[in-house]
Amino acid sequence: MSKGEQTRQRIVARAAPVFNTHGYSGTSMSELTKATGLEKGGIYNHFPSKEALALAAFDYAVELISQRFAAALEGQVGAAQRLRTIVQVFADYLDNPPVPGGCPLLNTAVEVDDSDSPLRERARAAMTDLQRLIGATVKHGIASGELRPDADPREVAAIFTAMQEGAIMLGRLYGDPTPMRYTVAHLNRIIDSLVCAHP
Amino acid sequence: MSKGEQTRQRIVARAAPVFNTHGYSGTSMSELTKATGLEKGGIYNHFPSKEALALAAFDYAVELISQRFAAALEGQVGAAQRLRTIVQVFADYLDNPPVPGGCPLLNTAVEVDDSDSPLRERARAAMTDLQRLIGATVKHGIASGELRPDADPREVAAIFTAMQEGAIMLGRLYGDPTPMRYTVAHLNRIIDSLVCAHP
Repeated sequence: MSKGEQTRQRIVARAAPVFNTHGYSGTSMSELTKATGLEKGGIYNHFPSKEALALAAFDYAVELISQRFAAALEGQVGAAQRLRTIVQVFADYLDNPPVPGGCPLLNTAVEVDDSDSPLRERARAAMTDLQRLIGATVKHGIASGELRPDADPREVAAIFTAMQEGAIMLGRLYGDPTPMRYTVAHLNRIIDSLVCAHP
Repeated sequence: MSKGEQTRQRIVARAAPVFNTHGYSGTSMSELTKATGLEKGGIYNHFPSKEALALAAFDYAVELISQRFAAALEGQVGAAQRLRTIVQVFADYLDNPPVPGGCPLLNTAVEVDDSDSPLRERARAAMTDLQRLIGATVKHGIASGELRPDADPREVAAIFTAMQEGAIMLGRLYGDPTPMRYTVAHLNRIIDSLVCAHP
């Protein structure tokens, strides 16, 4: 990796928590220079605009999320077990977010949902990938006979995503893990109800 | 109402959609002067700071939400019916938010969850009131014998709130009502499951 590429990656890694904590419009160039230890010109050497850096920081956050799911799911066999693992990865966001400041998907989605912007496109794509991971797990479980054939992969994906992002919001607002505990228990009961009864 | 008080209320009503759409840190004084039709000095005549106006705008949004729930619940008898009404009030946010820009509680909670600020206190209080409305409805239903005695009012309140705020986020991100439709159906099934079976 060239020195320039290393600097670029360091800027992104240091900017991501700032954007995720303060929001894109709430982040000033002076906060970015402070976090990266570079002058404004040093940042502009690598990114043409604050928005370009914001996009790179969002992509970086999404990559960390993907790695986290991949690592947790490695070696997990069976749809129900994999769904429980996905639920737990989300639950861990409260104590240990992928990037400081909470869930980058939730934060970005809420901030950019009023405007058509490249960030909104990125947030949609990342949220769709997340729901596809859940939906594909349900589909595989139906195909293997582990889950009930009437389970609806898209419905499960939407319900799990809505509920866990909402629980992250509540947990962070109150600094209290209780809403997430209720959510994890509820989603695990849903998973139980999706498993075929084998008499 | 004095002319000054009328002007103050007009500023708040016009500022609330701006804050709810762009966020508190994303809203500039020039956007506020444009929305209110006043000069900066005219706004500062009534509010000592942008933050003071933001607090008043949040309180105004919460008041509109309270009125909406009160109007929908008027004359609704029975805990299950009242819970279904609460679910539907939330579902209507997508097409018809209490203030343009989505759910003010969700937007504010996500924006301010990293800092201790008066706005975070307000967002917590409003989210708690909302959960108390749900929890009290469950409690009354248990007391009247309509709902199962093992229903947990706090759990129901947290799950309903997390799921509907998450569904509002998804619905607005995609401009698609499907996640909210799944959510409404799921929450109505939960309500059905809370009702005592009377053989």
